[in-house]
Amino acid sequence: MRFDASTLVYDANGLLPAIAQDVDSGDVLMLAWMNADAVQRTLETGRVTYWSRSRKALWVKGEVSGHVQELVDLRIDCDHDCLLLKVRQTGPACHTNRKSCFYTAVRDGREVELMAPAAG
Amino acid sequence: MRFDASTLVYDANGLLPAIAQDVDSGDVLMLAWMNADAVQRTLETGRVTYWSRSRKALWVKGEVSGHVQELVDLRIDCDHDCLLLKVRQTGPACHTNRKSCFYTAVRDGREVELMAPAAG
Repeated sequence: MRFDASTLVYDANGLLPAIAQDVDSGDVLMLAWMNADAVQRTLETGRVTYWSRSRKALWVKGEVSGHVQELVDLRIDCDHDCLLLKVRQTGPACHTNRKSCFYTAVRDGREVELMAPAAG
Repeated sequence: MRFDASTLVYDANGLLPAIAQDVDSGDVLMLAWMNADAVQRTLETGRVTYWSRSRKALWVKGEVSGHVQELVDLRIDCDHDCLLLKVRQTGPACHTNRKSCFYTAVRDGREVELMAPAAG
């Protein structure tokens, strides 16, 4: 059936969570939010575009940093209220300059940092 | 530093999204929601426990179906408002009896089903 971004299930703010996963390594890179317009633009341009909740604006990932995400495959979950984006990531995905936002683990009741920021 | 589940950043409903990833295959299995109590119980029991938004109750994943998730590693993102759970999954993760909830792709503007439900 023809895909229509408006048929996805959005929350009270018109958003749904989108998980970005590196298509080669399988690493989960980050989770951010999309509205219907962001979903549509991501599909049309092949450049992953989120909704910035802080700036209240569309956010083409990497537009400023150069750390863009090329969309390889877009997946929808069973409830149509969450997306999984298989992406080809340029540079680190995290604004802290780490390849993934999930660089902290909880082990033996303590937070442990697993990755250092990339140099430069 | 000592981990305290109450220091995570929850939304207006007291919830944050938690992504479950198969620790062996790297497949992203599902996204569900946790409150601070669910995070604490998951860490204490090693059995992944979500908050069911429909039932408004703690939900020990697999308690009814047997399709439990054993927690292998819990990761926190840079904003402390999202979790990544590395899990060992018994049976299919999805309530539709598929190994992952993300079994639909959008390709050439159409929805394509990538996985069939497990037999039995």
